[in-house]
Amino acid sequence: MRQSILFTKTKREPPKDEEAINAKLLIRAGFVDKVMAGVYSFLPLGFRVLKKIENIIREEMNAAGGQEIIMPVLHPKEVWEKTGRWSGFDALYKVKGKDGREMALGPTHEEIIVPLAKKFINSYKDLPAYLYQIQIKFRDETRVKSGLLRGREFLMKDLYSFHSSQEDLDNYYEKMKKVYQRVFKRCGLNTIITEASGGTFSKYSHEFQVLSEAGEDTIYWCEKCGWAQNREIFGGGSKCPKCGAKLKIGRAIEVGNIFKLGAKYSEPFDLKFKTKDGKEQIVIMGCYGVGLGRILGAVVEVSHDDNGIIWPENVSPFNVHLLAVSDKRKATSDKIYQSLQKTKIEVLYDDRNDVSAGEKFADADLIGVPWRAVISEKTGDKIEVKKRDEKKTKLISGNGLLKLFQKRHRS
Amino acid sequence: MRQSILFTKTKREPPKDEEAINAKLLIRAGFVDKVMAGVYSFLPLGFRVLKKIENIIREEMNAAGGQEIIMPVLHPKEVWEKTGRWSGFDALYKVKGKDGREMALGPTHEEIIVPLAKKFINSYKDLPAYLYQIQIKFRDETRVKSGLLRGREFLMKDLYSFHSSQEDLDNYYEKMKKVYQRVFKRCGLNTIITEASGGTFSKYSHEFQVLSEAGEDTIYWCEKCGWAQNREIFGGGSKCPKCGAKLKIGRAIEVGNIFKLGAKYSEPFDLKFKTKDGKEQIVIMGCYGVGLGRILGAVVEVSHDDNGIIWPENVSPFNVHLLAVSDKRKATSDKIYQSLQKTKIEVLYDDRNDVSAGEKFADADLIGVPWRAVISEKTGDKIEVKKRDEKKTKLISGNGLLKLFQKRHRS
Repeated sequence: MRQSILFTKTKREPPKDEEAINAKLLIRAGFVDKVMAGVYSFLPLGFRVLKKIENIIREEMNAAGGQEIIMPVLHPKEVWEKTGRWSGFDALYKVKGKDGREMALGPTHEEIIVPLAKKFINSYKDLPAYLYQIQIKFRDETRVKSGLLRGREFLMKDLYSFHSSQEDLDNYYEKMKKVYQRVFKRCGLNTIITEASGGTFSKYSHEFQVLSEAGEDTIYWCEKCGWAQNREIFGGGSKCPKCGAKLKIGRAIEVGNIFKLGAKYSEPFDLKFKTKDGKEQIVIMGCYGVGLGRILGAVVEVSHDDNGIIWPENVSPFNVHLLAVSDKRKATSDKIYQSLQKTKIEVLYDDRNDVSAGEKFADADLIGVPWRAVISEKTGDKIEVKKRDEKKTKLISGNGLLKLFQKRHRS
Repeated sequence: MRQSILFTKTKREPPKDEEAINAKLLIRAGFVDKVMAGVYSFLPLGFRVLKKIENIIREEMNAAGGQEIIMPVLHPKEVWEKTGRWSGFDALYKVKGKDGREMALGPTHEEIIVPLAKKFINSYKDLPAYLYQIQIKFRDETRVKSGLLRGREFLMKDLYSFHSSQEDLDNYYEKMKKVYQRVFKRCGLNTIITEASGGTFSKYSHEFQVLSEAGEDTIYWCEKCGWAQNREIFGGGSKCPKCGAKLKIGRAIEVGNIFKLGAKYSEPFDLKFKTKDGKEQIVIMGCYGVGLGRILGAVVEVSHDDNGIIWPENVSPFNVHLLAVSDKRKATSDKIYQSLQKTKIEVLYDDRNDVSAGEKFADADLIGVPWRAVISEKTGDKIEVKKRDEKKTKLISGNGLLKLFQKRHRS
C-alpha cells in the first residue's frame, strides 16, 4: 500500500487522555482511534494486525477440531435468568426494545451456546463437540485505563467444548494448553500458564500471562519448573510448592484463559446425552477464551522502544516498509514496490513527496514494521535494509530484497 | 469436512415460528439458529456462506480503493445529539453504563466516522478518501417476520466516501453502482437499480432490488431501458417516463443501497478541508451499504426448490457434496475425499455410517451444494456426478472429478 493514500497520518504528540503505553503508541502511529473510554476504532493499520491475529487463532482452532460459528450480541433476558446471571453478572449491559423485551449485550456466550447445543447434541455419538466464534463482547467495566488491554467493547475468540466424561474434558483441556501457548508464541508473546480461581467443578482455571509492568495482574512463578499462580489465590510463601526453588513475583497481562465448566451451564439448561447403554447423562463442558485486542495491546507493551512499536513478523501490518527518500530515484522505487506487490509481499511504500527523509525514518520507527528498506541517492544501485530492532544496515540488490522476503513469507 | 462430525443435523420439519422461506430452509438445513425474533446465530454451514459473501465484498471494496477499518458498536450519546438523531432515529437501541453514561448501539456509523475523518482530513491532498467496515448493526425494528431479510442485529458492509467536490462524489457514485452490481452478480443475484427517496442533498438515493415475492418493497421497473423506482416515491402512470415502454410492477428485496449524503453529516461536525488556494470548504460525502445476512437470505429466496436450497457456486458452503452410499466402497470414498481435500477443493463428505442412502440424498438436496458426487456399488469404478439444479447425472472417474473442480475453482 502506498503511504501517500493511507488514510491515517502519524502524530508527534501522544494523546492526553491515555495512560497506557499501548494506547499512546497505537494512537500516535494511527493504528486505533479512541471513541470513548474503553471503546476504540481499529484503523487500516490496526485492522491489518487484528486480521493477522485472527487468522493465527482461526488456524489453530480449526486444527484443534473447532467449528466456527457466530452467535449474536443481543441475548434474551430469560436465558440469563436461568443461570442466575441476569442479576449475578455485575458487568452486564442491559437494553430494552420498543416491544418491552429486555436483553443483555453478550459479555460471554454460555447462555446462548448451551441452548444451541441442546438442539443438536442427543447421543454419545454427537460428542465430543467443539464450537468457537470470534465475536465482539461487552462488559460494563468501571476502570478502563489500560488502553487495548481492557475494553468495554472488545473482540474475543471463545471456544466451548462438550464432552461425555470428565476424563475426555481433562484430555482436551491439556491439549488446549499447548494450542494456546502456540497461538501466543506465533503472535510473538511468551506466556506463563498460571493457576487462577476455579469454580464448583475444578480447583483451578488457567490464565496465560505475559510478564509486563502494564499488566493488571500480579503472579508468582517458578523459573525452574514452570509452576505459577495468580496472587488472587496465592497461599503465600517464597518457595515453589512443586520444586522448592525461589519464587519470582511480577506484574503480568492476562491474554487468555481456559476453564473447566463441568456441568455448571449444562445443568440449568438440562443438556444431556444418551450413553451407549441408553442412559441419560449430563454433558461436561470446557471454555477457552482469548482477547484479540488484548493480544495486540500486549504485543505493543512488550515490544517497543522510545521511537515506537516493534511488531513481531507474524502480526505486523506489513512485511516490509519501503522508503523512497530520493526524488531522483523515484522511478526505481516505484519499480521495486511493484515487484514486491507482484510476489504477494505485503509492503507499505512511503512514496510521499512532501515529507522529509527524517520524518519518513521517524514514521517507520513509530509504525514498527520489522523490516525497513531505504532507496536513496547514497545507496547507488542498492537498497539499504535494516531490521527494526537492530542497528546494523545492509546493502542488497532489488532482487536480493525480493528473495529475502520470498524466503521469509512463503505462505 | 466430514459430515459425521459436522455439528449440525438437518431437520425434517420446518420451524413453527417462522413465516419466511429463507428462515425455514436455513434452519431446517442447519445454516442458522433463531435466538429470538430478528436475532440469529450462524452455524458452521451458514458461517461458511457468510465468509464467502464477505470475501467477495472485501475484494470489490479494496479494488474500489476502500480501506478497511472496524468502528465500535457502542456510540456516545453526544455525537448522536449533534446530528439530531439521538431522538430523531426511531429504531435506535439505547443503553446506559454503570457510570451513568448513555450510549447508542450503532445502527449506522456516520456519527462515528465523521469525527474520525476530522482527525485525518485537513487538506485537498487528503481527498478523496474511502473507508469501509464489515460490522454488526442494531435496529429496534417493530416487524421482523422476514427471516434473514430483516434483523434487529445484522452484519453490514458500509463504505463512506469523502470528496472535495460534488462532481468527484458524482463520479465515484456512478462507479459504485457498477461495483455493487458486480458484488451481487458474484453472489448469484440479479439486481435492479431502483430510485428511492433522496434527501436534502440529492433527489434520489439508489437501491439494489432483487425481484422476489418475499421482498418487503414494491418497485416499478422498465424491462426495456432499465429505469426503476420504488413505489414509495413513484408518481404513478403505467408507462416508463424515460422510454415510454410499459412498466412492470413487482415485489423485491432491497440488498443494498447507496446515498449521496452531501454535507448532511460533515456540517454538524464541521468537517472541512483546505483547498489549493488555502480556502476552507466543506467535505462532501457518500455512503454505500450492503447487508450480508440479507444477501444470504435473498439468495435462498430466489434459489431453492421443494427439496431445499440451491446455492450459486460462489457462495456455496462447499464446492461439492460427496456421498458415500455404499459401505463396501468406503475405502474408495475416503481416498477420493482425501484427494479432493489435498487439492484445496472444499468438500462436504457424507461419511455417516448409520444413515440410509435416501436420507443422504435428501440432506444433499436440502443443504444445496451445487454439485453432488455419489459413490455407490451401482456406479462401479466411477462416480455419479449431478448438478443440484439439473436432473441428468454423469459417470466420471476419480481423476475426472478432481479435474472438474480444479478447473472450476482455480483461486
